[in-house]
Amino acid sequence: MIKVGIIGVGTVGTSVAQILKDNADVISARAGTDIVVKSGVVKNLAKDRGLDIILTDNVDDVLNDEEIDIVVELMGGVEEPFEVVKRALENGKAVVTANKALLAYHRYELQDIAQDLAFEYEASVAGGIPIINALRDGLSANHIESIMGIMNGTCNYMMTKMSQEGVSYDAILQEAQELGYAEADPTFDVGGFDAAHKLLILASIAYGIDAKPEDILIEGIDNVRSEDIAFAKEFGYVIKLLGIAKKDADELELRVHACLIPEDEMIAKIDGVMNAISVVGDKVGETLYYGPGAGGNATASAVVANIIDIARSGKSKPMLGFNKPMEGKTLTLKPTANIESKYYLRINVSDKAGVLAKLTKIFENHNISIETILQRPTDKENANLLISTHESLEKNIQAMINELEALDFVNARPVMIRIV
Amino acid sequence: MIKVGIIGVGTVGTSVAQILKDNADVISARAGTDIVVKSGVVKNLAKDRGLDIILTDNVDDVLNDEEIDIVVELMGGVEEPFEVVKRALENGKAVVTANKALLAYHRYELQDIAQDLAFEYEASVAGGIPIINALRDGLSANHIESIMGIMNGTCNYMMTKMSQEGVSYDAILQEAQELGYAEADPTFDVGGFDAAHKLLILASIAYGIDAKPEDILIEGIDNVRSEDIAFAKEFGYVIKLLGIAKKDADELELRVHACLIPEDEMIAKIDGVMNAISVVGDKVGETLYYGPGAGGNATASAVVANIIDIARSGKSKPMLGFNKPMEGKTLTLKPTANIESKYYLRINVSDKAGVLAKLTKIFENHNISIETILQRPTDKENANLLISTHESLEKNIQAMINELEALDFVNARPVMIRIV
Repeated sequence: MIKVGIIGVGTVGTSVAQILKDNADVISARAGTDIVVKSGVVKNLAKDRGLDIILTDNVDDVLNDEEIDIVVELMGGVEEPFEVVKRALENGKAVVTANKALLAYHRYELQDIAQDLAFEYEASVAGGIPIINALRDGLSANHIESIMGIMNGTCNYMMTKMSQEGVSYDAILQEAQELGYAEADPTFDVGGFDAAHKLLILASIAYGIDAKPEDILIEGIDNVRSEDIAFAKEFGYVIKLLGIAKKDADELELRVHACLIPEDEMIAKIDGVMNAISVVGDKVGETLYYGPGAGGNATASAVVANIIDIARSGKSKPMLGFNKPMEGKTLTLKPTANIESKYYLRINVSDKAGVLAKLTKIFENHNISIETILQRPTDKENANLLISTHESLEKNIQAMINELEALDFVNARPVMIRIV
Repeated sequence: MIKVGIIGVGTVGTSVAQILKDNADVISARAGTDIVVKSGVVKNLAKDRGLDIILTDNVDDVLNDEEIDIVVELMGGVEEPFEVVKRALENGKAVVTANKALLAYHRYELQDIAQDLAFEYEASVAGGIPIINALRDGLSANHIESIMGIMNGTCNYMMTKMSQEGVSYDAILQEAQELGYAEADPTFDVGGFDAAHKLLILASIAYGIDAKPEDILIEGIDNVRSEDIAFAKEFGYVIKLLGIAKKDADELELRVHACLIPEDEMIAKIDGVMNAISVVGDKVGETLYYGPGAGGNATASAVVANIIDIARSGKSKPMLGFNKPMEGKTLTLKPTANIESKYYLRINVSDKAGVLAKLTKIFENHNISIETILQRPTDKENANLLISTHESLEKNIQAMINELEALDFVNARPVMIRIV
């Protein structure tokens, strides 16, 4: 019998205990052994969770319990859980976590500490979708060319609603908060940070690269407005927040930002709170993985799958997918300034004679070639210029946006969304 | 160093050898060891395959080679490869196969023989999509409620073209044959048999059920005509060939047939030769896996992933996902007659007064309730009645079709497509 201790018995932790009980028949048959939750660590012992496990508010009761084989970390945070899982590993216990922030910062240290102990984290990216599994094991024969993922359900829900129902950004953010999809402070989701944590984990498995959130481009959807959605529709695009990893010779782009995506791409068809991750391998081509990226049961499904896997095999695959570094191939992060992309710009200008000529001249000076342009009045004296460009260099776009912002006929800093 | 022998060096076998060479850097880093193909068995030694491996036409040269750790079976067929992989296992070698027909008939015997030796078969279902991986490991915490998959790229290509370009069945079959998507005798694909083999493999992993092709309902797309596609479009459906596994209490439905699917379902959005498999778990909800279901490199990507997995771990998971049977839960196959579904019918009738009244009376007699009805003339004297029903029982539909076929004003056996 395998005994599990859960540190942090909130929504996901409760689901983990419940699934191990509800589905004990099939889990025991698949694992070849019974798996039970012995104890759980909570902050508030007074709260009834409806579970028949030992509850304690002292993490040592789990970490020092010699009967416990697997520690499930569901505390949240970064440094506190880092100390906890380190101690669990030092005590010879396997670890399963759903904590993406912990991994975004400490995954390589954890791999070093874990050694031959199992350390699994399927639930940390895209909830119930077994994407770690697919990338680490299923696609291991491939050089990964790119990963493009809808990794934040809150943002995808908001973008879908804005697109399908014409709701404004502010109204849909409020609705998402009321539905519990977005926090009171939504920055972590709509600012792209949640997606960035997940992207970094996938990038390690695909490319063996150790990058931290502060090393990469992270933008959110907070600039996207109804007029951008309308432009996208008119030209056959949808707008999504994507996490992107893209290999270009010896350089790797890692970035999270809103994107215009051609509407016939599979990833463009993913609506609502669902997540999906498209992976292109040099041999297999594109595969895509779709499912619920959040929710207690979906996340717990991935946690329990990891527990079963540990029960089956006892030992870990290489935690991040590489048994040793690739010889002579060191990927470096491509500086953001050197990213090449097509761009969409929304520029609010005073609607005066000669403005368009001056503006297009500035585009030309920055070596940026315009693909489409659409002018829409915003009131009697002002208009939005909605412009898409041909492939351009990020540093040129940024320099141009700075120049445009300073002009007297440009009313606000132009909004830019990259086109993929 | 891990040494591989390939039995059957055709398109996929050549790709396997090529990938192990092309991607040796990343494969060796992931596996933690070098993996090389030592030898391959071919029928025609004279043909140059551009590979620097030993070629032989004697299977014993691989099976009895003590240096070879992993035998890759890519021969095709059922009984001959069965004998070959049995001998490989008896000689203590791990086995990787892409052979769905072999597994459709012999997977449980092979699991018994393999015991602790690795026996992997990711490429046998949906080519490059790691669906075995997902179902066996990623979703193991769940009771699987249903599997619905586009598992045959040829049929999906044909259905897509008929729907999007209005091409006739015969014209698109001919085109598929010219493109090499369909064989000269297309029965195996368009008759649903290829999809059935794959469905049976997935059903074992999801439900632990041992069923053979002759035990289940297998129909193809060969009855689908342009007028059915047009009806589907008009009522918001698309037509696809699906492999379906569906649990209903202690009974399991396993069936392959053309389906009308609501166009907003994810699986309805899968176009062209691509495959996709939707799996609903009781805890995780729906996840979906999309990618190339065929092609040398995509299939070989899955074969090589299995090889890497064996190199990493040395031993097998339980081959079919279960370490022991589920206690007290024996699923039985639901008899086809008891399937409940909505149905679409195309009935060609003489366009005479009173026909519709007689027909609807017969529906009523068989306890079948009509949802929509559309009448379309086929020539001056005849018309197609295109009818969709509410949920009905398969045996009632079949009995009614038999009765209808015998009527003097019904010109041919009515065509039926199930609606999911």
